[in-house]
Amino acid sequence: MFGAVIHAPGDVRYEERPDPTILEPTDAVVRTVAACVCGSDLWRYRGIAPVPKPTAIGHEFCGIVESVGDAVTGVAAGDFVVGGFNPSDNTCPVCRKGAQANCLHGDHYDGCQAEKIRIPLADGTLLKVPEPPADDLIPSILTLSDVMCTGWHAAVSAGVGPGTSVAVVGDGAVGLSAVLAARQLGASTVIAMSRHADRQAVAVGFGASHVVAERDEAGAAAVKELTEGIGADCVLECVGTEGARLQAAACVRDGGNIGLVGVPHGELPLGGLFWRNVGIKGGPAHVRSYLPHLLDLVLTRAINPGVVFDLELPLSRVAEAYAAMDERRAIKVLLRP
Amino acid sequence: MFGAVIHAPGDVRYEERPDPTILEPTDAVVRTVAACVCGSDLWRYRGIAPVPKPTAIGHEFCGIVESVGDAVTGVAAGDFVVGGFNPSDNTCPVCRKGAQANCLHGDHYDGCQAEKIRIPLADGTLLKVPEPPADDLIPSILTLSDVMCTGWHAAVSAGVGPGTSVAVVGDGAVGLSAVLAARQLGASTVIAMSRHADRQAVAVGFGASHVVAERDEAGAAAVKELTEGIGADCVLECVGTEGARLQAAACVRDGGNIGLVGVPHGELPLGGLFWRNVGIKGGPAHVRSYLPHLLDLVLTRAINPGVVFDLELPLSRVAEAYAAMDERRAIKVLLRP
Repeated sequence: MFGAVIHAPGDVRYEERPDPTILEPTDAVVRTVAACVCGSDLWRYRGIAPVPKPTAIGHEFCGIVESVGDAVTGVAAGDFVVGGFNPSDNTCPVCRKGAQANCLHGDHYDGCQAEKIRIPLADGTLLKVPEPPADDLIPSILTLSDVMCTGWHAAVSAGVGPGTSVAVVGDGAVGLSAVLAARQLGASTVIAMSRHADRQAVAVGFGASHVVAERDEAGAAAVKELTEGIGADCVLECVGTEGARLQAAACVRDGGNIGLVGVPHGELPLGGLFWRNVGIKGGPAHVRSYLPHLLDLVLTRAINPGVVFDLELPLSRVAEAYAAMDERRAIKVLLRP
Repeated sequence: MFGAVIHAPGDVRYEERPDPTILEPTDAVVRTVAACVCGSDLWRYRGIAPVPKPTAIGHEFCGIVESVGDAVTGVAAGDFVVGGFNPSDNTCPVCRKGAQANCLHGDHYDGCQAEKIRIPLADGTLLKVPEPPADDLIPSILTLSDVMCTGWHAAVSAGVGPGTSVAVVGDGAVGLSAVLAARQLGASTVIAMSRHADRQAVAVGFGASHVVAERDEAGAAAVKELTEGIGADCVLECVGTEGARLQAAACVRDGGNIGLVGVPHGELPLGGLFWRNVGIKGGPAHVRSYLPHLLDLVLTRAINPGVVFDLELPLSRVAEAYAAMDERRAIKVLLRP
């Protein structure tokens, strides 16, 4: 089979790789229906994270189960499934607390931008879609593999609930998903911080009540203007740079919370937040915890997170997908074999 | 009148000071019934925080209102009152969010280890005790001015709720109050980390289900032993040193929360907590938010936080109180004029 391999910064190739097989009795092999490129994949593509050797890449997918190991009981060949970017057994003490991203037996994929994928811990990781989904639902289902759950995680981590005011830093696919999540979780004010007209439009479609195009001090001032002069109850930081974290700290009210899902590059400055009683929580999303509810929202068409895909390419053109996202010509690229 | 003035590290004197008067129409003047020494006062006493000039000291009190300014409507001369260590108007947008420690118009006291105290923002700061309290309730009422509310704040900040497991780092008056708070908030496992038999006894009396005397790695291992091997859902850090913060990080489970109320000295290391999905929240306590509920618990004798006072001295011997706490001969010292 063929799949994407990153050889060096800027060098992603679609090349022949060994067919995945069942290695453990808890494995499944899935034939990919759709995959995509993540903002976090770009860290290596841009040379910010190292690429010590050629590595199969990708961690988002939905597809059809081709085979399962002897111990797998929750899914079977022929099932349409979606799974999170971080395989978890969903039964260990940490998973039982709802923190599946930190599963004691957590595992990883060997490259999901591929025609087939080996899924470790299949019972804990995969969720079966009850009926084969309509084709137009595929993009939204695919977002549940990462970005939609990650945006949701930012909102949950920051304690978004009915009546809260929320500001979202970052207008990539995760930030836009966070806007959608905040609205679904009952926020009354949802401020999308974005300078790009196309992304602003998606944010408004996802339920943003306000768009703030300014950044830095002017951006924080604009957020305060919309929140009784004090800042947002919850700020969702969906970028991962130090600048984004400082922007979040400037936009949150005293006593409020920052939900952090941008993969942090550099330290996390915290000092002054103690005196302001500002909370910080976040990390990799507990996808398996959120999947059932979010899949239900997608299948009933209550949410349409697949709108974040503004470019679709054949999987064989995965290198173009990276380039398009790197050059910000696309928010997020969907790939089909 | 007389009151305590810190002149330099190790040098607290009981000396004549001007009688406080109503300076603003929102002020009250309170005649002190009881005051006390805070662990945070020791930072200056020990020379860790600076003492640039002789300064009236103390921020915990209960007493009887002597006079009020024209704008004060909530309390009147003769009322027995308790107030938090951080005056707040309780009406600004931040206070209305329950974050009174960060009141937009927040103020401070001019030394509460004194016979009389000027209380700014009296309506927002003071809570009237409905009846003059029995003398044996005075210590518990006094704890509401700081330590009991601060322990409560640690628990609230860490999300302690029914069924959670909690570890408390620090066995000073705040740590012990945090044990009591965790139990009141429904925690099913409450682990007090303490090496001192007298403090362990108070912790058990306050509802600790377990005591861990070990520290560092051994302490974290003991906490994990009691929490399915994964660490506590919530860790309450009630010291403020870097060592205490690292201990907290080692004791919390992935996906859990650290409640931080020890006044931080040094930076707050956070880096690795992102990948572990560990939340951090805390700061100065929102006393005015917690006071009504906690006063009710004290007056109905549901809780008895005054047990943390293991030494009582006349206010005139305030210097001895500092020495006793500095030398750890007392957990906390109550002072009466």
